[in-house]
Amino acid sequence: MKKLINKADDVVREELQGIEAAHPDLVKVFYDPYYIVRADAPVQGKVGLVSGGGSGHEPMHGGFVGKGMLDAACPGEVFTSPTPDQMLEATKAVDGGAGVLHIVKNYTGDVMNFEMAAEMAQAEGINVESVVIDDDVAVQDSLYTAGRRGVGATVLAEKICGAAAERGDDLAKVAELCRRVNANARSMGMALTSCTVPAAGKPTFELGEDEMEIGIGIHGEPGRERMKIKSADEVTEMLTNPILNDLDFAEGDEVLAFVNSMGGTPLIELYIIYRKLDEMLKERGITIARNLIGPYITSLEMAGASITLLKLDDEMKELWDAPVVTPGLRWGA
Amino acid sequence: MKKLINKADDVVREELQGIEAAHPDLVKVFYDPYYIVRADAPVQGKVGLVSGGGSGHEPMHGGFVGKGMLDAACPGEVFTSPTPDQMLEATKAVDGGAGVLHIVKNYTGDVMNFEMAAEMAQAEGINVESVVIDDDVAVQDSLYTAGRRGVGATVLAEKICGAAAERGDDLAKVAELCRRVNANARSMGMALTSCTVPAAGKPTFELGEDEMEIGIGIHGEPGRERMKIKSADEVTEMLTNPILNDLDFAEGDEVLAFVNSMGGTPLIELYIIYRKLDEMLKERGITIARNLIGPYITSLEMAGASITLLKLDDEMKELWDAPVVTPGLRWGA
Repeated sequence: MKKLINKADDVVREELQGIEAAHPDLVKVFYDPYYIVRADAPVQGKVGLVSGGGSGHEPMHGGFVGKGMLDAACPGEVFTSPTPDQMLEATKAVDGGAGVLHIVKNYTGDVMNFEMAAEMAQAEGINVESVVIDDDVAVQDSLYTAGRRGVGATVLAEKICGAAAERGDDLAKVAELCRRVNANARSMGMALTSCTVPAAGKPTFELGEDEMEIGIGIHGEPGRERMKIKSADEVTEMLTNPILNDLDFAEGDEVLAFVNSMGGTPLIELYIIYRKLDEMLKERGITIARNLIGPYITSLEMAGASITLLKLDDEMKELWDAPVVTPGLRWGA
Repeated sequence: MKKLINKADDVVREELQGIEAAHPDLVKVFYDPYYIVRADAPVQGKVGLVSGGGSGHEPMHGGFVGKGMLDAACPGEVFTSPTPDQMLEATKAVDGGAGVLHIVKNYTGDVMNFEMAAEMAQAEGINVESVVIDDDVAVQDSLYTAGRRGVGATVLAEKICGAAAERGDDLAKVAELCRRVNANARSMGMALTSCTVPAAGKPTFELGEDEMEIGIGIHGEPGRERMKIKSADEVTEMLTNPILNDLDFAEGDEVLAFVNSMGGTPLIELYIIYRKLDEMLKERGITIARNLIGPYITSLEMAGASITLLKLDDEMKELWDAPVVTPGLRWGA
């Protein structure tokens, strides 16, 4: 196992210590249980946004805590759901009296634990809404999921809803917006290599030297098909066409195109994919009005990429452009 | 070779097409020869900053073109120096009458070609100054370099000097600042795996399943020593101690700490390194006043990391904090 770590058991704690040391101006880190909140939490009168999930997808979610995005993130162990007590503590820490939105990726453990945390928080008098993100068109059910998995749209929802909460939208409005982002976003990913969970010490799955897997999940869960490696242009078509076929993307639409690295795929390759994606959408009369290109929802060191398309409306564009100041995403301030 | 590319010969051109499609608000891309300039170039009365080098280190340099950083970048083929005509065309394209600074990483081909380009530009009446960056303490001479290699300090110099040019400093002042950044910065890197140059189709070097290489260059050039894989804390010490021993970092100093991924090493591991680095510096009474953590000067998909420390003065801090709007680095605007 080739990793820059100390003990496998210490990976998440030591990463959090690194985040705490690096970004005291942006976040506060708690260790018992683990959660990260923005430095000025709770912000009085503002809806609090909480997300979380297994570690290993950095910068998501901890890297998205800060002004204009998340109020708190709950990191589980690598590829392991956080516990309800982490979510409860984070929820209490960011409640500024206007309620809290839980943004939950659709994995059975995450959904179950966030439900429990929401009930406990409500019992303590905090108004909680939850939105489950399920944008991955690759497979209907998967290893850890009933229904579709939640992937790239999560990053977009966290940014857009973070901006809405920041400008003062109430809980019902922010939750409605989050559902709208999820309803208008579709994703699909692929892998050239596996990743290795530190505690397991060996690759999550085996892929031949000349093979790739289309439709894979961000924990290496099985996708649609294994096949011989194809060109970047063919891969881009194999990811984009199922997305376009799944939602009524139409001529004249504006989209946000998110080309994401699974971790081990470098930027030079993401731009080659983006080039083809842009060409495909232009042919259909669809305009990429905003984009995001880089490693934002990763699977440790897995080589591979995913594409997310979000159909934009004017409000989403305005909220996307609004200032954001987090360790992982920053502009406008 | 597991890569998301089409033909090896098309990698750089197609990447540039992706950059052009993605960032028309920030940059303009030229193809004959290859160079990237900021969208509003030339900026009248402002010193122009030009850098360049082989591709494969993205986001450096093309991703650092934009307001507050570079005016132009010249991408060579992967791990291959750009040609003098690229540098000349870029220099002419960004000259706004206040002269042009060439920021050159110390690799023999880059240095030679930038020298030729500077002479040709001067023959056309453009005032050009050049600064060679040579911050890598690992080895004295290397495969493609006489003297020390130029690595992480290049990113910091481009940001800091870009801000100085933006506020209106003249060519002599920007060049002096660039030399000061280089003189006060030291770096060292390591690798867990090789990378594969697309045109070569096979790994640049071989490293055993339980081995790492300390002091490696960003093209996989030999470093100081191969050894069994060590813990993240031990690796951090092996990178940091030679840096601290090479310059008079003293109690009370403020530094910018740059923890960089070679490409294949994920963020979670960079924060584990940052945690140890912060601890080591605190023990010596050195304060990390600014930091940069992520993949900024990469070696394709190589797994590994590098550390750069820059001794800061007040002017450098102010210029570091100034707004920057590029595809690869953005804040304050």
